[in-house]
Amino acid sequence: MITKPTLILDEKRCRENIREMFLKAEKNGVGFRPHFKTHQSLEIGRWFRELGADKITVSSLEMARYFSPEWNDITVAFPVNVREIETINELAGRIGLNLLLEAGEAAEFLRHNLKHPVGFFIKIDVGYHRTGLDPRDLAAIDRILGVSDKTRLLKFKGFLTHAGHSYDARGKEEILQIHRESQNLLNPLKARYLNKYPDLLVSVGDTPTCSVADDFSGFDEIRPGNFVFYDLCQNQIGSCGPDRIAVALACPVVSLHRERNELVIYGGGVHFSKERMNDDDLGTIFGKVVEKTEDGGWGEPIPGMFVKSLSQEHGIITGPESEIARWQSGDYLLVLPVHSCMTANLLKSYRTTEDRLISRL
Amino acid sequence: MITKPTLILDEKRCRENIREMFLKAEKNGVGFRPHFKTHQSLEIGRWFRELGADKITVSSLEMARYFSPEWNDITVAFPVNVREIETINELAGRIGLNLLLEAGEAAEFLRHNLKHPVGFFIKIDVGYHRTGLDPRDLAAIDRILGVSDKTRLLKFKGFLTHAGHSYDARGKEEILQIHRESQNLLNPLKARYLNKYPDLLVSVGDTPTCSVADDFSGFDEIRPGNFVFYDLCQNQIGSCGPDRIAVALACPVVSLHRERNELVIYGGGVHFSKERMNDDDLGTIFGKVVEKTEDGGWGEPIPGMFVKSLSQEHGIITGPESEIARWQSGDYLLVLPVHSCMTANLLKSYRTTEDRLISRL
Repeated sequence: MITKPTLILDEKRCRENIREMFLKAEKNGVGFRPHFKTHQSLEIGRWFRELGADKITVSSLEMARYFSPEWNDITVAFPVNVREIETINELAGRIGLNLLLEAGEAAEFLRHNLKHPVGFFIKIDVGYHRTGLDPRDLAAIDRILGVSDKTRLLKFKGFLTHAGHSYDARGKEEILQIHRESQNLLNPLKARYLNKYPDLLVSVGDTPTCSVADDFSGFDEIRPGNFVFYDLCQNQIGSCGPDRIAVALACPVVSLHRERNELVIYGGGVHFSKERMNDDDLGTIFGKVVEKTEDGGWGEPIPGMFVKSLSQEHGIITGPESEIARWQSGDYLLVLPVHSCMTANLLKSYRTTEDRLISRL
Repeated sequence: MITKPTLILDEKRCRENIREMFLKAEKNGVGFRPHFKTHQSLEIGRWFRELGADKITVSSLEMARYFSPEWNDITVAFPVNVREIETINELAGRIGLNLLLEAGEAAEFLRHNLKHPVGFFIKIDVGYHRTGLDPRDLAAIDRILGVSDKTRLLKFKGFLTHAGHSYDARGKEEILQIHRESQNLLNPLKARYLNKYPDLLVSVGDTPTCSVADDFSGFDEIRPGNFVFYDLCQNQIGSCGPDRIAVALACPVVSLHRERNELVIYGGGVHFSKERMNDDDLGTIFGKVVEKTEDGGWGEPIPGMFVKSLSQEHGIITGPESEIARWQSGDYLLVLPVHSCMTANLLKSYRTTEDRLISRL
């Protein structure tokens, strides 16, 4: 029984998303280190392990700690936060931990404060301009390696990048263009350092390029995360069809305003987050309403019916008169999220379409 | 020691904000039923009680349950969600509970399913157009009262409104204009029903009008919430000066990009939410960096230094070259949130500037 905003998970779709990406990595001969920041769930993590995954990515040390009882090889894909050195040491004493470096100063800090060995990747900026070193800035790279070469506590694992600017792409060709640019920037870097560090890896990892590309030449590892659920944003980018989206927020209808073709749902910014997108047809939206199906899941988006605005607990749904007319106060409707990572982070568990509860961090 | 994103609370400012609003209600002879959705903390709630507050507002039954051990008179200012009838009955058996109605159907449902008496307000729309009945739609109002008059389980408390469109106002005069419109719409309604329901209350409650107005004629109760902390959004509207903002997010600096006048902080959408605002001078911002002070608190915003974008865990700070130059990886900085309700909802506790931990729901 849905009593309040509840994140519904279509386990079958989710397992298919996982399986497809796992097989793609296998077929292309690249390592698979899925990012678990999207689902943040030990149980969903086991669905990856059943296929053979044995290493993961997370975005905080808190997540690394949560997953550490079941995963022994974890990359924290976030610039090392030296203020958390105690947590780093605690984890590094128990599991294989990889950190991200992009400055000699942080490398020096680790060299003097680590109590156990860690692996590290050097973060490279391939065009997103959020974090990372310019791949042509060999001096900065060599400064980090100059520090790590002096200590057995810092083991250089390779170069890591996140082509987050692929989120601005629209359609396969634009996504592939970004993917090829990453290859063009990273391949010479790999070639340059491979002699001295023959085990070095090049790790890449955004969902759009990993979903769409078929050629991973030069890359050794992929780290997509969002693909486990996908969402409206990924659908708009061109990473997936709407039928691949594996989570929907069930929201009770609490108020009817047929005079302006609106419904009010219990489901607001504290459930969806305030993530928005510009839909080509609908303008700014915060989610789309889908048809419920008999089996507890959902089908296609209902044309023109979407979340128009969000406040703390309220969502306003607008739609064509004929669609709005179908709903009563006391019903619940299902909404596809704009950004599943943010929505999943706000709901503290999943309920599968078979009505099973799955917990998370 | 700040190790990761931590919500810092200036207890002194917060208590002053509470005291000022409490005294304003007292001076104007209106009841004070503060909205606790912003802080969601039993301990902060006690700061209200110390002054004499004895009734509160919340936005969910979950919050009502959390506060029910210490508060015996709670209004849930959200359209009644009939799917939660079990929780409603459980609470109504223990405390004085007020619900919100805006349709005869929901009133009928409660009449047949309540096990204990509840109070209710009829939600009136004074121009925000999110929820509520048109104040001129007397037929709809009478439909609800026609149901409640038949049962002792539903006690009519009065009319309640939230002039949320005041959030689009800029400056005192625009805020007061909205306030006067509310008075013009609600006063005739009150006059019409006062004979039959001599105890009826008119309850209003957005932070901008409650902060700025000095004339509450016709109103019986105010329910502001955000004023407990205020935020950049309220400062922009004109509800408060920047020196009244009582929370700031402490964020470790994890990466320096001086070549583009940027810092990367540990502090992203899962901490701030993705709430944004259009600053007149800076464009779209997600927070402003303030000067830290010796006493653990903060002073004025640093001119031109703000959060430019957020991803899940990262925030990008941009600023003038001279300001960016002052920071090192391993420092932490303090950021005023755009919307304190959303940020406080994401952080699971407060740390006061005196380094004391305050828990919340």
